[in-house]
This record gives sequence, structure tokens and C-alpha cells, in this order.
Amino acid sequence: MDQQLSNKIEAHFDEMQEIRRHLHMHPELSFQEKETANYIANYYKTLGVPVEENVSGYGLIARIIGSKPGKTIALRADFDALPIQDEKDVPYKSQVPGVMHACGHDGHTATLLIIGKLLWEMRDELVGDYVLIHQHAEETDPGGATGMVKAGALNGVDAIFGTHLSSNHPTGMIGYRVGPMMAAVDSFDIKIQGRGGHGAQPHQTKDAIVIGSQLVMNLQQLVARRVAPTESAVLSVDSFVAQNADNIIADSAYLNGTVRTFNKDVRVTMEREFRRIIQGTEIAHDCTIELDYRCGYPAVVNHEKETLFVRDVAQDICDVFEMEATMGGEDFSYYLEEKPGTFFFTGAAPKNYAPHHHPEFDIDEKGMLVAAKVLLTAALNYQLVD
Amino acid sequence: MDQQLSNKIEAHFDEMQEIRRHLHMHPELSFQEKETANYIANYYKTLGVPVEENVSGYGLIARIIGSKPGKTIALRADFDALPIQDEKDVPYKSQVPGVMHACGHDGHTATLLIIGKLLWEMRDELVGDYVLIHQHAEETDPGGATGMVKAGALNGVDAIFGTHLSSNHPTGMIGYRVGPMMAAVDSFDIKIQGRGGHGAQPHQTKDAIVIGSQLVMNLQQLVARRVAPTESAVLSVDSFVAQNADNIIADSAYLNGTVRTFNKDVRVTMEREFRRIIQGTEIAHDCTIELDYRCGYPAVVNHEKETLFVRDVAQDICDVFEMEATMGGEDFSYYLEEKPGTFFFTGAAPKNYAPHHHPEFDIDEKGMLVAAKVLLTAALNYQLVD
Amino acid sequence: MDQQLSNKIEAHFDEMQEIRRHLHMHPELSFQEKETANYIANYYKTLGVPVEENVSGYGLIARIIGSKPGKTIALRADFDALPIQDEKDVPYKSQVPGVMHACGHDGHTATLLIIGKLLWEMRDELVGDYVLIHQHAEETDPGGATGMVKAGALNGVDAIFGTHLSSNHPTGMIGYRVGPMMAAVDSFDIKIQGRGGHGAQPHQTKDAIVIGSQLVMNLQQLVARRVAPTESAVLSVDSFVAQNADNIIADSAYLNGTVRTFNKDVRVTMEREFRRIIQGTEIAHDCTIELDYRCGYPAVVNHEKETLFVRDVAQDICDVFEMEATMGGEDFSYYLEEKPGTFFFTGAAPKNYAPHHHPEFDIDEKGMLVAAKVLLTAALNYQLVD
Amino acid sequence: MDQQLSNKIEAHFDEMQEIRRHLHMHPELSFQEKETANYIANYYKTLGVPVEENVSGYGLIARIIGSKPGKTIALRADFDALPIQDEKDVPYKSQVPGVMHACGHDGHTATLLIIGKLLWEMRDELVGDYVLIHQHAEETDPGGATGMVKAGALNGVDAIFGTHLSSNHPTGMIGYRVGPMMAAVDSFDIKIQGRGGHGAQPHQTKDAIVIGSQLVMNLQQLVARRVAPTESAVLSVDSFVAQNADNIIADSAYLNGTVRTFNKDVRVTMEREFRRIIQGTEIAHDCTIELDYRCGYPAVVNHEKETLFVRDVAQDICDVFEMEATMGGEDFSYYLEEKPGTFFFTGAAPKNYAPHHHPEFDIDEKGMLVAAKVLLTAALNYQLVD
Repeated sequence: MDQQLSNKIEAHFDEMQEIRRHLHMHPELSFQEKETANYIANYYKTLGVPVEENVSGYGLIARIIGSKPGKTIALRADFDALPIQDEKDVPYKSQVPGVMHACGHDGHTATLLIIGKLLWEMRDELVGDYVLIHQHAEETDPGGATGMVKAGALNGVDAIFGTHLSSNHPTGMIGYRVGPMMAAVDSFDIKIQGRGGHGAQPHQTKDAIVIGSQLVMNLQQLVARRVAPTESAVLSVDSFVAQNADNIIADSAYLNGTVRTFNKDVRVTMEREFRRIIQGTEIAHDCTIELDYRCGYPAVVNHEKETLFVRDVAQDICDVFEMEATMGGEDFSYYLEEKPGTFFFTGAAPKNYAPHHHPEFDIDEKGMLVAAKVLLTAALNYQLVD
Repeated sequence: MDQQLSNKIEAHFDEMQEIRRHLHMHPELSFQEKETANYIANYYKTLGVPVEENVSGYGLIARIIGSKPGKTIALRADFDALPIQDEKDVPYKSQVPGVMHACGHDGHTATLLIIGKLLWEMRDELVGDYVLIHQHAEETDPGGATGMVKAGALNGVDAIFGTHLSSNHPTGMIGYRVGPMMAAVDSFDIKIQGRGGHGAQPHQTKDAIVIGSQLVMNLQQLVARRVAPTESAVLSVDSFVAQNADNIIADSAYLNGTVRTFNKDVRVTMEREFRRIIQGTEIAHDCTIELDYRCGYPAVVNHEKETLFVRDVAQDICDVFEMEATMGGEDFSYYLEEKPGTFFFTGAAPKNYAPHHHPEFDIDEKGMLVAAKVLLTAALNYQLVD
Repeated sequence: MDQQLSNKIEAHFDEMQEIRRHLHMHPELSFQEKETANYIANYYKTLGVPVEENVSGYGLIARIIGSKPGKTIALRADFDALPIQDEKDVPYKSQVPGVMHACGHDGHTATLLIIGKLLWEMRDELVGDYVLIHQHAEETDPGGATGMVKAGALNGVDAIFGTHLSSNHPTGMIGYRVGPMMAAVDSFDIKIQGRGGHGAQPHQTKDAIVIGSQLVMNLQQLVARRVAPTESAVLSVDSFVAQNADNIIADSAYLNGTVRTFNKDVRVTMEREFRRIIQGTEIAHDCTIELDYRCGYPAVVNHEKETLFVRDVAQDICDVFEMEATMGGEDFSYYLEEKPGTFFFTGAAPKNYAPHHHPEFDIDEKGMLVAAKVLLTAALNYQLVD
Repeated sequence: MDQQLSNKIEAHFDEMQEIRRHLHMHPELSFQEKETANYIANYYKTLGVPVEENVSGYGLIARIIGSKPGKTIALRADFDALPIQDEKDVPYKSQVPGVMHACGHDGHTATLLIIGKLLWEMRDELVGDYVLIHQHAEETDPGGATGMVKAGALNGVDAIFGTHLSSNHPTGMIGYRVGPMMAAVDSFDIKIQGRGGHGAQPHQTKDAIVIGSQLVMNLQQLVARRVAPTESAVLSVDSFVAQNADNIIADSAYLNGTVRTFNKDVRVTMEREFRRIIQGTEIAHDCTIELDYRCGYPAVVNHEKETLFVRDVAQDICDVFEMEATMGGEDFSYYLEEKPGTFFFTGAAPKNYAPHHHPEFDIDEKGMLVAAKVLLTAALNYQLVD
């Protein structure tokens, strides 16, 4: 990459780290990120960057208009935290009991703010326009992305790029993937209302445990028989609860779980066939089954051209590898449904490894430098793409 | 019992044996018993006993009217044979290829004809009237009994008695049971119409084998969860056929089997819940299931008073024992739905034992003497019952 | 029955009621019935009746030796209470919080004490000997009966009789049944130890909910396929608990339930096949399943001769009816495994009906008179039986 | 591509067609291809090309040694036919009743013979060596490829290329894919030996239909729970046969089917877990299950470098597209397990479309020209690859 640009980014490492650690110490839950939003707004205002606040909640959009005409490129970082108690022993440990940046969104925000600062500094010779989307509430369905899109964050945008810092990959690596990258995650709650009774009188009951067990077995058929072998789907019943005194046949049972898919048709098929099995089970057992089937984020499907473009950009900066798709979810998917773009993972494995969403989660802050270099170079170089 | 009557019966053993052996050599299938019916009719006509022929097919009814007023008692014997090749090496072996008296109906008929002869001889001092029902077609649903009843065989009858010779019990024993004695036997044929396809493309198919397997599992729940523990029911899927070339997912599957019950409510419940499961399975799998559910003979349910009466009568003649109910079926049930009465088993195990419906089935013909004594004494003594 | 004896019993109704109400106000849990045992001992000591205390715990045995030689007859009453809060609004309401005579054992004891008093009064002309078994701890497996038997309560006994007061049947009725009367009740706890994991990674887990569901389905086959249709068995899974956060595949699942049978062979078969299915499931899923299968009381199987004898005795005192066997359990079974005898139900439905084990359970105390008449007459008349 | 070479190939179209039609009229089944092998051998001998006959059966290997040193490139064509009756109405219809080139192997052979002829003609200026593998018996497991490899067909080979003509894709298209292209296809036969019996006596039987149904349900769990969602696997039970007379509980049941996978670990997992479920089912039901699990061809896994090389070569000749992996199998996999290479599909859809293995299957013979051009150019140009 451009050596000068690289140097500039590295020169801002201390500030990036400072921002990240500030946010890490003051985490806020999804849809409650008031102070974080203020912090971001102030950062831009101090610089003089025009920033739109309270976009569909606590979201913010900063816009940097280049002096020469060109494409409009969006970059996105999320900034909400999780309901997890920080158990790390570090100076920048969360100061909010039970709330923690356990997924790296603090790092995403620090990275994007520094990118914003650098773009702002270059504005006189800058080609094209840059939309910096600071999105709230990624962790909790329905998420902030859909509101940002509705509020016009992507108006006029030609391409969008985003990344996720990853404690699972070493610093210095970028993981890309064309097509499905992260899953659509839908969830369900089921209440089976049978008819309870004495354990010695099964014929006067509708045994909710037997009905539930059969339902679990039948739902497992969906992945095996209703999904093309070359497509992916997971259906997991995560809870099955029917607790009764001895000798009492279950009156009701509660089940819940998730359905994960990449392909839209497969997603639609899974829900349709799921409902079919529920309906058939109700009839077969003459019972009532309440189903609450909630569609979460769609799958993150990376566009081929932009993904290979970012891969090529990154190869000049760090190591790159083609990732397996993951069954986890991200609401970056909503942006990619509207505009060309790609979402990639940036390695940031710390010395003391802990997985994401773990009470001891941390990142190697040097990973932010890699993210910043790739995102900023991609944004600038995309001006040259046909 | 009355010693004189006992002697008279024994004196007719040779004739009884001769009749039985004649019938054994000339067996006829259900609903085709033309010559057997002629033989019976001629026997009565030769004696002068009035006999009604062609009752609801090849059935016959002989009536012997006593000289003194009394009750009207019916006795019943069936006379059809089975599509089985006789493989015994005896002089009276069946002369009809592939047809055989493999269940003892020849013995029932010989017994009842001798009873008829003796009643006719006693007619001048006889109290009450006697209806001798020679029923065709017991082996094949819908059976002859229902037609005999519709044709009026039980008009004016006060009680009915019948027995079955049994190769499973030694000669000299009578098995009785109050209440359910033999099961209602219903049967079903199922055609599951899924959608076939290549073994590599399960998502484009509706796998009839998976659907059928699930159906088998679900049907097994009926006995466990829909029938009171103190009631009896058996549901057996006897055949499951879905045969395809390698790599071909089953387009259709054929299942058949039987449902056996004693209690009428349980019988109704089983059919209702069976249909419910079929319907639920169709919906869950979006397939078509053709069900042919055929109700066979109802359960043979013996009346308490008449059963204990016959037990007491028999105790004076031979050994008696309380039988377990059997899950086999008999169309004597139709008579017992209309009139008080009882159906009992008469031991007639031969030296060379073979089970009923076996190619080497035979009876100890002495068992017919016991049957005749119990039936005739019961018929005569029932006149004295309140 | 003997009118004089009947009058004598009725003359003691007030005392019987007084005893019952005293016990009702001072209930004690199984194996903790210290004061109740003292009360019973004192009653007999005051009369002068020899009583053996602390038999296998708090059990007591009073023995009344007649002046003339005869048979030795045992009568049994249990005296423990239940961990239920008495919610009746009556003067004799339980004074112990959370403990209550909610099954009528107080009435059993009052009845047997009055019988003891009357037998003692008759001792000079009494034929035979009488063993009055006051048994502790019927409600809680392993129960008191087995200890009483081991301690010699049945030594020299020719027959034993017992009854249970029933709020389900009107006063003035006795329910009898030859053969199986109450079920053997066994219970099981199952812990399925699979391997948990993220809902998106099923292949790295052993899903305890799928394993448990399959187990429930397979266990249901036992009743349908492993038990003779004319025998009774119930297997109910009463609880199925596997509760996990969203997206977490179950690490473990807990199931429990009961198995009820009448026939010993069926009981043995059920346990054997149950264990087989557990073992097969462990292997099929490469998981660990802990099974705690506990055999409770055996079935109460009434002896034919003694049952019909009591029926005949009772017919002279009140109405009698043949009961359906019930799937509930009783440790009276241990006595009947050793000696001839019968256990019957005595109607005692109060005006304000509540089922047994209910916080508002009560009895019509007049039912105790019927119980006393039948038990005492049976004990005395059994001397005359061959 | 090289225009001169292209012209040469096209100039041989008539001969190619003639060869193909001759073979089409004289098809031979797998492992019985004696005359076809002779035909191929004669073709080469007539030209003077050295050819090795009877390689591991009827296989042949022709070797053309270039005048200049270079890489050794193998090309492979198979030549066996199928047990299908040709139902086309064309002059070149199969003359062998019940045997037919219904998969295009005749075209593969014609293509490779013409390539051989052209290479032979170029031999004086040819760089590198060329191994022309004419393989017998592709259609029937264990296939001819494994024997060819053992016999040394790939000794010294640097890369191998092969193609399949496809009636499913239009002429003028080449389908490529990096990585898994065709599935490993394993198959299984299962005999469940339960214990038969009368439909009324289930407890004396081990119902093979219930056992089989449960097995089908449990096997379906493998794909849903034992395979990573991003991997592919199909398990299909294709036949389930247990046919019995009415009232007879099944003594045995026969199941068969296939298991298809791409990934080696998944393949191993499927077999291991399949055997586990069989074993667990045996134990749970106390029955015997015979399992014949046969591993067929491994998956065809294309090497990235050679695949993208062929793609690039083909782009200069015709249209190319990235194919979905197919769940069908091919023993070309054995070559790719030994040497770098790729297997691709060549469109040859005729006017009257019929799928492969269909009695009216045919190809557009012009597709052979495309195949010849891509294979020959790839073989020659691969000399230049690093």
C-alpha cells in the first residue's frame, strides 16, 4: 500500500488505542448507547466533520466530501456492548457492572474514527465522497442496521465495506469470502399445550413430553430431507422444558431454538416446512401448539467484485485467506442487500485468548491498524475501479 | 349330567365321526359351501326335521319345536373350510387340492347334526324350542353370521350357545370366560404417495420411506398413550414395502396391518386416533396417504349369566377352566350382540398336534362328544333357569 | 351380620371418631411417627392388651389370644401422614404446618384400635388368635410393611385382611377384586450427558435434547411391543428438562418418570427392556446415560379365596362391587406375598369431596363403621372357613 | 486457441463421429469390453502408436513421446456401456439388446483417439510426453481406474485431465469447479433379523418393521447432527422391504441405500456413526442387524491450479461456467488422488434431450470437438506452466 498513508495510520495508533480503551471502560447495551454516541459526535465535531446524530436511534453518520468528483464509499462500524461481566484484569476493564465490550465493537469504532480523521485531513485532494456509518445495536435483533438504511445512510452510495476484529485469528491476517459469509439466524419458541393427568391414566391425557419428543425428531428431518446437500442449514432445539411432580403426565412443554441458513430460498423453505410440521403435529395429537417463529438478520452475502477487490487490496498490506462461511449472524447483511460491498474479518488475537462473548475477551489492539489500512485503502482505491 | 343322555350321545359317536370325516374329505371355501349345505339339508330332511335352506347364502336353520312350551334356545355351528393344502396322511384327508378343514368346522357341524337328531327324537316330551344354526363363511370377513342374524335366525331366541373345538387344549376340558373372550379384528392398508427422485437430491423429493417410518413410530404411540392400561389393544404393521433401484428415493410406500381390541370404546378410539395420525402425517409431509381401514368382526363378549351357567353345566361333565381372552376373532360376536349367550372352547388335542390353520391340523374326534354333551345339556337345562 | 356385634361397633362410633380426630390434628410424616406410635401403645396398655412396640421402627403389634384354639388372623392399619398443608376449615384440622392426614390413615388406625378393644372384650369366648398390625410409613418407599414382615408380624398367621378408606366411593360400599388390585410402581431418573456447544456447530456436539427425544419415543414402544395385550403396563416420562441459553446445544438432559405394572413377569420385562434401550441409546449416540431405576412396592395381588370370602361377608353388611384394578401402589402387597388375604376399599366419601392427597381431603367418618364391621366379621368368620 | 490446431481438430470431425457411432452400435458392459478394447488397440496400431493392452483387464495405455523434453501429461477416456435398452430411432442405434452407451463414453473414446492421432502427427516437434489412458469399467464399482493406477498408468505423469460429455449442458460450454466436483458414493445393505409371530402376540416378537422404522429415523439424524452445516452429505434409504401375510409380525426387514459425501473426514464420520447407530439399535432391540457397508469411489476433488488453468484455456475456446458440485460419482477420483489435474464437464445437449442413463440418451456430437480442443490445448499448454 501507499507507504505514506500506512505511516500516517500507524502514527495514530496511540490515539486509536486511547479511544478504544475509553469505550471499553464505558460500554453501553444495544439501543442504550447514549454516551457512546455523544463521544463519537464530539470527536467529529471537534475536528469539524459534519455529523448527523440520532439516526434511527443513537446511530450517527459522518460525511466527508472530497474536492474532486468520484464515487461515494460507505464504511461502517458498530458500537454497542454486551450484557456480560468483564472479568479481565487490565487497567481498561469495563467500569460498568455486567456490561462489557466482549465482541470488539469498541475497536471497530476507534478504527473508523481514525479513518474519518485521516480522510478529513486529506479532504482538499480527496476524490469522491465518504460516508462513515457509526451504527448502534448490532447485538440485538432487530438491530440498528435496518434503521440506518431506512434513514438513508446508503443514499448515493456506490459501495460499502466493513470488518469485524477477530480474537480467533492472528494479527496480520484478513479473512475474505465471496458469497455467503455469515448466516441468517432465525429463532423459534414453541409451547405445546397437551392435557396433563395422573401417570397411571395416560389415555386421559395428551402427553406433552411425547408430543415434544416427536416434534424434535421430526424437525431434525428438515435439514436431512428438505435442504439441498450442497446448501447449508442448521436447526437446533436449544431448550426442552416440561417439569412435573412424580406421577404427573406433562400438561405442556416449552421448546426453543434457532434456524440458521445462508441461502434465501433455503431460509424460506425451512420456515415453511417448520410450520407444516407444527401443524401436522397438532392434528396428529389433537393438541394446540403455539409457535413464535422470528426471522432475525438475513445472511451476510458478499459481492464477488468488491470482495475480490478487497482481497487484492489486502494482499498488499497483510496475509489474506479465504474463510469458511460461519453460521453466526451480523446485521451488516442489510447494507449488502442494498449496495455492492463486502464484510471481512481482521485478525486481532491477543496473548490471552478468549472467544468472543467470553468474560475475558480482549483484542490485540494492533489488529486495528490492519483494519484501518485495509478499509481506508479499499475506500480510496475503489475510486479507480471500473 | 343325565346318564341316559350321555349314553345316547356316546352311542352316536360313530355317526358323528363319519359325518365329520365326510366333510373333512369334501371341504369348501367360505361363501362357496354349496355341497356342504346340501349335505346338511339332506341329513335333516331324511330325519324329517324342518330345515330352512339358503339363508343369506348357503346358511341353514333347522327348528325343532318341543311339545311343551318353554324358552327358545339357539345353537350354532359353522361349516366353511380354508385355502390350505391338507398335508396329513390319514384316510379322511381332504380330496380337494388346496382346500382343507384346518380349523375344525367339520367337527362343529357333525356335533350339531347329532344334537339335532337327538332333539328330534325327544320331540314328544321336549320342553321349549330349539334353533339349530348352521352358518356358512366364518373364516372370511364380512362372514356369514351377520347375514344369518338379518335373516331372522335369532327371532324369538332366548339364548344362544356355541363352541369351538381346539387342538390347543386336551380332550375333556372346557374353557370359559365372562366378558371379552375374542378380539375385534380390524385391518388397514396404507399407501403413502410421496415424490420420488434421485438419491442425491432429497430436497426435491418427499421420501416415502421416511414418512412411513415416522408413521410406524407414531402409530405405536396409540397403544401406549391412548388406551387405558387395564384395557387391551394391539396395533401391528405387518408389511412395509417400498422397493426401489439403487439411488432412487422412494416415491411411494405400502403398509398394512391389524388393530385388535376387546372394548368397543377402545376400538372406536383406536380408529379415530389412527385417522388423526394419518391426517397429521399428510400435513406434516405435504404428501397424500390413502387409508383403507376395515372394521372386521366385533369382539366376542360373553354374557355373565349364560357363561357361568354353561360353566356349571360343564363342571358336571368334564374339567373346566377360565381362559385368558384371545386376540383372535370370531363372528359369533354378532349373535352375542343380539341375544344372551356364551361361546366356549372345547379341548380336542389330537396325538399329532398342529396348530389351527396348519396344513397338518387335526382334532381328537372324541372332543366332539364333550362338545355335544355340554351344548345339549346346556340347551335343555337352560329351560329351568329363571 | 351378627346384630349384637354390629350394635357394639356402632356404640363405639364416638370413641372411634375421637381417636381419628386426635390423630388428624397431630399428623406425623413417614418414619417420624413417634407420638402416634406412643398414642397407639398407650391405648392398648390402658386396656391391658399386650403390645409390642418399635417393631422395625415405629411399628406396633398387638396380639389377642382367644380362649379356644383356632386360626391366627392378622388385620393391618397404617398410620403415617403426608407432607401436605391442611386447608380444610374444620375443628380437627391438622395442627402441624405442612403435614396432614390426607389419605385416611388416621381413620384406619381408629378403626383397628376399636376392633382391638372389642376383640379384647370378647377374649374369654374368642376362637383363634388375632394379630393387630399397626404399620408405620406406608407413604414412602421402602415403606414399613417389609420391615414388619421381616420382624415376624406374620409368623403363624393364617390370613391377613386390610382396607383403605376411599373418598372416591360413597359410604356403605365395599370394593373388592380378585388378583391384581393395585400396581407395582417403579420409578426412574435419567441423566443424559451429551456434549454441549454452539447452535451453529451441531457436528461438534452430542445434542442431549435429540438423544432424550429419541429415548422418549423408544421407551413408548415398550408398552406397545413388549407387554402382552392382555396385561397392563404404563410407562410415563413425567419430566424432561434441558434448559439452555439461546444458540446453545444441550449438554445434558434430565428425565424422570414411573413404570406401573401388575404382573411380576411384566414388571421384570419392563425393567430389563428399559435398561436395554438405555444401553442401546448410549451406544448409538456415543454418550453417557445415568439411570437410577428404583423398584417400589410390588403389586397388591388379592388371593381368590379370601377375596371372595370377604365379598360374601360384606354382602351381608353393605353394598359390594367389583373394582377395576388401580394403577396406584400400596405396601400391603408385601403381606399378601407371604400369606393368603385380601385388601379392599371402603367407601367414605364426605359431603365436601376432595381426592386423596389433596389439601382439603377428608372422609365421612361413618365409613369407619363399615370398615370395622367387615374387618371384624371377616376375622371372626374366617375361623369357620375350611 | 491456436487456429491451426482448431482447424485440424475440426477437419477430423467426420472420423470422430464415425468412431463414436461405431462404438455406439457395439456397446459392451463394464469389465466385458473385449471388442471395444480391440477396436482401440487396432486404431493405434494402424497409426503406429505404441499401445499397451490388457492393462488391469481391458484397459489400454497409448504413449506418445515428444521429440523435446517436457512434462508428462495424461488424458483419460472411459469406454464401457450400460445395461439399458437403446430406444432411440437413429441409424447408429445399439445393435446389442439391453446394452447401450447411455452415458457418452463412446464420445469420450472417439475424442481421445482423435487427440492421439493428432499428437502422433505432431510428434516430431512435440514438447513433452503424452499418456492416453483408455479406461474400462467406469460404471461399476470397483471400477477400472484403481487398477489402471496400480498398473502404473500415472508413473511419471505431471498432470492429468479428463472430461465428461453432458447432455444437460448446451454445446459450447465447459463447466469447471475447484475442489470437490463429484461425490464419494458409498452404499449399504441392512438385514434386520427380529423374531416374527402372530399379530396378536407382539410381546413374543421382535418386530422388524418397528426396528427398521426407528433405524430410518435415527439414520436421518446423521446429516442433521453429525455433519458440519457447511459440508455436504446425503443419506438415503432407498428400499425398505418387509412383506408378510396378514396378522404376521415381521421376522425380518431389508433396507438399502446410499451415503454421498465430498469431504473425506465427513465420509469417515458418516460410516463410523452409521455403524454406531446400527450397533445401538441391535442392543436396544435385542436383535441382529447385518450391515454390508460398501465404500464406492472417493469424491472427485479438482486441484486448484490445474482447474483454473483449464478454465483459462477453455475461455479462449468456448464459454465456461463454474459448476455446482454434483452428488454423482466418478472413478476419475482415483487419478486425482495421485496426481494434479482436473475433471470438467463438456456441454453436448442434443436436439432431443434425454438425461444420462435414459433409454433415449444421445449427445450432440459437436460437443466432442469442444472436448478435443480443450483437452488437447490444455495438454500442450501445460508444458508452459511453472
